[in-house]
Amino acid sequence: MRAPKIAVLVGGVGGARFLQGLRQLLPEADISAIVNVGDDVWMHGLRICPDLDTCMYTLGGGIDPERGWGHADETWHAKEELAKYNAQPDWFGLGDRDIATHLIRTEMLRAGYPLSAVTEALCKRWQPGVKLIPATDDRCETHVVISDPDNAGERRAIHFQEWWVRYRAALPTHGFASIGAEQASPAPNVTDIIAAADAVLLAPSNPVVSIGSILSVPGIRGALRTTSAQVIGLSPMIDGKPLRGMADECLSAIGVATTAEAVGRHYGARSATGILDGWLVHSTDTAEVPGVEVRSVPLLMTDPDATAEMARAALELAGVPV
Amino acid sequence: MRAPKIAVLVGGVGGARFLQGLRQLLPEADISAIVNVGDDVWMHGLRICPDLDTCMYTLGGGIDPERGWGHADETWHAKEELAKYNAQPDWFGLGDRDIATHLIRTEMLRAGYPLSAVTEALCKRWQPGVKLIPATDDRCETHVVISDPDNAGERRAIHFQEWWVRYRAALPTHGFASIGAEQASPAPNVTDIIAAADAVLLAPSNPVVSIGSILSVPGIRGALRTTSAQVIGLSPMIDGKPLRGMADECLSAIGVATTAEAVGRHYGARSATGILDGWLVHSTDTAEVPGVEVRSVPLLMTDPDATAEMARAALELAGVPV
Repeated sequence: MRAPKIAVLVGGVGGARFLQGLRQLLPEADISAIVNVGDDVWMHGLRICPDLDTCMYTLGGGIDPERGWGHADETWHAKEELAKYNAQPDWFGLGDRDIATHLIRTEMLRAGYPLSAVTEALCKRWQPGVKLIPATDDRCETHVVISDPDNAGERRAIHFQEWWVRYRAALPTHGFASIGAEQASPAPNVTDIIAAADAVLLAPSNPVVSIGSILSVPGIRGALRTTSAQVIGLSPMIDGKPLRGMADECLSAIGVATTAEAVGRHYGARSATGILDGWLVHSTDTAEVPGVEVRSVPLLMTDPDATAEMARAALELAGVPV
Repeated sequence: MRAPKIAVLVGGVGGARFLQGLRQLLPEADISAIVNVGDDVWMHGLRICPDLDTCMYTLGGGIDPERGWGHADETWHAKEELAKYNAQPDWFGLGDRDIATHLIRTEMLRAGYPLSAVTEALCKRWQPGVKLIPATDDRCETHVVISDPDNAGERRAIHFQEWWVRYRAALPTHGFASIGAEQASPAPNVTDIIAAADAVLLAPSNPVVSIGSILSVPGIRGALRTTSAQVIGLSPMIDGKPLRGMADECLSAIGVATTAEAVGRHYGARSATGILDGWLVHSTDTAEVPGVEVRSVPLLMTDPDATAEMARAALELAGVPV
């Protein structure tokens, strides 16, 4: 039997862990992860791609297991010194080991390599066992419209990282914009991979700033709507709360309730104007999403075994039984 | 009495220590250090200025006292990770704390600030108590013509850092070239500072790759020859051996003997075609340099007090008694 081709749309920590479970379930499968780049940012002259790095380090065995992001055995000496220079921003977790990745990436980008080629080069070291592809090689950054606490609540847009890391999403938030999305194209092969997949999965990542950001790249939504594969999503909302991160703040800002059903409806059915054929919600949740087959299965990624079972359920719903 | 204006041409470790002694001797003096940039190099997309940083960290109290270069309490985690990526070069000592300096410098240079302005900005933190000015804002890099050990001894030019750090100067060496020198100009104010100085000193730095590199910038030698101040050099050669570093290898490559007298003659007298009025050699050395007043004094920079006495002797010879 031919090894199945599986395309997965992923964000950072949750997406990386889901890929880990999927790879454990199907070590021989041809897995392509289409990774969110909306969080990407220039800091101190370095191009930082948090979700790509989280996937790369997690699958390559280099992640810090406590934090879920960044290198194991990390130190923060460059960051300390930058702060002593009063260099801004001073709120971003720039680790010394992590800087090596950013230096190589930045140098390659400046030499003209697209992010997808840079990612491939970095993965030669990490051997993630999954093809990691940025959703786009173009700039397509998530910015957040907030009420500025330092300026009488005046509205302005800040980079997603500032909102997320500096303010912990604790600002009056009015919406999100994918800066550069109009001019962006999917990275090479992304739409072909979706078209040729046996199953397309949406990892239980943030529906707004991870999956939503990927979908903002023109052409990706269309590829999901036209692939002959089934498109199956996994809910990141469990009992009305996000699995991790601050997805509730993101959903509230765009007027979507923080439930598995609301997120499923937000994605919508392919048979209507959406992108889903199937929707997995947690065992304790129920959801009705018109036109979408919903199943309840355990969705807690407590360890790779439990996560592998989630992947199995998603593939089964996609008609690709394992 | 007006505080004297003193201009000093300096390289790295030896130059920095000499400045430390001079500053101790004359805390109120207006001291400008014209710093060698021939060692400067791009590594992993970062612009690294070893001599400027050695002066800045030494005078700012941040130097590693054992090594004489780089930050105190340094770690090497980014370097370790770069090696795991097989990123070249892997032989350069890129410290984690040091990277902060390089990041700020690189970002400012890319934004269009000249190196002299960047250095001034970095010195706001370090407060060296001496004005540190790169000899030039232009690229003027020392390259070394060697017989390539990996290619049947074929001659080729490598960057000074590769020769110095990677090969410890232990290659058949045929000469030095200041790449970019023809198009370079002195950094702003450098020639004015030399012209207006009460005394101009050549620190006991490497006569070839530190002082020689500074002199390769068009206009600086002319400023030394025309200033109304006395120009006094301090010999880095003691008993036929360099104080530190590998000045002997550098001198041999250009056919100058490794003695205080030969280096003094290499610089030459202002009354002829050279740059010196006075030449300080170590107590145990003697030298005869036509047209130059030579004095023997202790020239071992064992501590700041001893170094301050060297500075005092140099200023006395310059007719600026302290």
